[in-house]
Amino acid sequence: MTTKMFDRIALIGIGLIGSSIARVIRREGLAGEIIISTRRAETLARAEELGLGDRYEQSAAEAVKDADLVIVSVPVGASGAVAKEIASSLKPGAILTDVGSTKASVIAQMEPYVPSNVHFIPGHPIAGTERSGPDAGFAELFQNRWCILTPLPGSDEAAVAKLADFWTACGSNIDTMDPNHHDMVLAIVSHLPHIIAYNIVGTADDLETVTKSEVIKYSASGFRDFTRLAASDPTMWRDVCLHNKDAILEMLARFSEDLASLQRAIRWGDGDKLFDMFTRTRAVRRSIIEAGQEVDAPDFGRIAVAKPAEASQGRD
Amino acid sequence: MTTKMFDRIALIGIGLIGSSIARVIRREGLAGEIIISTRRAETLARAEELGLGDRYEQSAAEAVKDADLVIVSVPVGASGAVAKEIASSLKPGAILTDVGSTKASVIAQMEPYVPSNVHFIPGHPIAGTERSGPDAGFAELFQNRWCILTPLPGSDEAAVAKLADFWTACGSNIDTMDPNHHDMVLAIVSHLPHIIAYNIVGTADDLETVTKSEVIKYSASGFRDFTRLAASDPTMWRDVCLHNKDAILEMLARFSEDLASLQRAIRWGDGDKLFDMFTRTRAVRRSIIEAGQEVDAPDFGRIAVAKPAEASQGRD
Repeated sequence: MTTKMFDRIALIGIGLIGSSIARVIRREGLAGEIIISTRRAETLARAEELGLGDRYEQSAAEAVKDADLVIVSVPVGASGAVAKEIASSLKPGAILTDVGSTKASVIAQMEPYVPSNVHFIPGHPIAGTERSGPDAGFAELFQNRWCILTPLPGSDEAAVAKLADFWTACGSNIDTMDPNHHDMVLAIVSHLPHIIAYNIVGTADDLETVTKSEVIKYSASGFRDFTRLAASDPTMWRDVCLHNKDAILEMLARFSEDLASLQRAIRWGDGDKLFDMFTRTRAVRRSIIEAGQEVDAPDFGRIAVAKPAEASQGRD
Repeated sequence: MTTKMFDRIALIGIGLIGSSIARVIRREGLAGEIIISTRRAETLARAEELGLGDRYEQSAAEAVKDADLVIVSVPVGASGAVAKEIASSLKPGAILTDVGSTKASVIAQMEPYVPSNVHFIPGHPIAGTERSGPDAGFAELFQNRWCILTPLPGSDEAAVAKLADFWTACGSNIDTMDPNHHDMVLAIVSHLPHIIAYNIVGTADDLETVTKSEVIKYSASGFRDFTRLAASDPTMWRDVCLHNKDAILEMLARFSEDLASLQRAIRWGDGDKLFDMFTRTRAVRRSIIEAGQEVDAPDFGRIAVAKPAEASQGRD
């Protein structure tokens, strides 16, 4: 272990993302000491049982003392409260970052509390599964995924570079962008898909003419792909909806317009238009596979999915 | 190979489903002879290169002569034309079935042509991948999936039982139901999810503020799950939309109503409502896993998907 980058890393929040960070820090030897804090006592106890850190603190303020890197991994709606709690305990010169799926709101919540001698650099690793909690994490989660940093005007370049190096050591590729642009991009690639998935599962669950057991039995024909997204953490997604409202409403409006147009083509039997709409989308998937962001296997069949040892622990 | 069930099976259409049927018939020794017919000469030649059958006929009428079981696996819009072409060549006492994703329309198209001495028993194996063509098939496709039969009033019970036995030998579980109920069930579990997936990929592709490369790079955050469904065969899905119009329009209307309600909760910041909506959906996924229709692995991570030897041939 000669790759130590920080003497002390404090992880505030130890769910899927926080616990995956803890595991990769350990595997790569990135910290001299890992301090873990989370609000719920039983979650903290579970993190200790799993041996995710070196020290465990119920108090976030206590946890961040003397930490060189503080990573806040909580639902975005809780960011402000965490910032307020830890602000006066942060070590001068420390790097403070987060992993939230919305950035403008997190910045608005946290920045007012951050002391001027602390480097606040918001971040967002684009990775996850449909599971949650400290058991759900695994060290490979960030491998070959993108981590977006949204430095603030005037951020210290050396601190940004050091945080980028940390995420690179975790296996990620790094991008930086403006927080508002991040929120627009994520609204389409992540937030809208989750909202749509939650919605379609709800629609199916409400039907009177089709029984629940029929929906379950025949789900391999398409529906089950949506249920995976719709099994994601409700608290996280409630907060995302509340904290990226404008971008999400914009994407929902576009989606609904397009759907109305598609619906009209179905009603009027416009086969040529349907064929055109259904053809252009193939190229997008091919590009995703070529970019290494998806496996090129016919996953509908789900015939060869093996469970990794760590991930199989992750039950909600 | 002592499990022969039919002397001759004719497969009309040799895409993903037809070629998977050919492979499982061969593996299980279910037929004395497999005769393959498809409209396009190059597809037929490819089926022959792959050794999927024992005989290859460009003419569907020629292919069905003396066949005890005829399976039509073509886009549902082509069902009527195929029935017309083969009607006078069908062997008395033969079983004629199909694999179409809509049933009322297929029956309306085919039944008028079917001679009274032929057992026409519509069917639908609920299985597939996002790939198409003779290379895409694999013998395990139907394993532990459901096959729905929609026998007509007065269908011969022995013939229905024999077709059910055939699908059981292919690895499937069998259900029978009314054609209109089938179309309603499939509209929600399959047709709506595909239409929604095609639509969201189209919406993303049209954005001016987010670049295509951003959509691709960050797709692991949810979007890529939709691109898999949206990579399905455009001809097949155009035909499904045109041939299950009423049920699909009904499901689209319900979906859009629900989405408007969800959108309103986002606009007005109704966190409790969002949390409730996002919570009920988890139970649905758990049921699907318990029913054996999905693997219990955190598939967002896509960390352990191995390609089966056969399926990896299947490129579009």
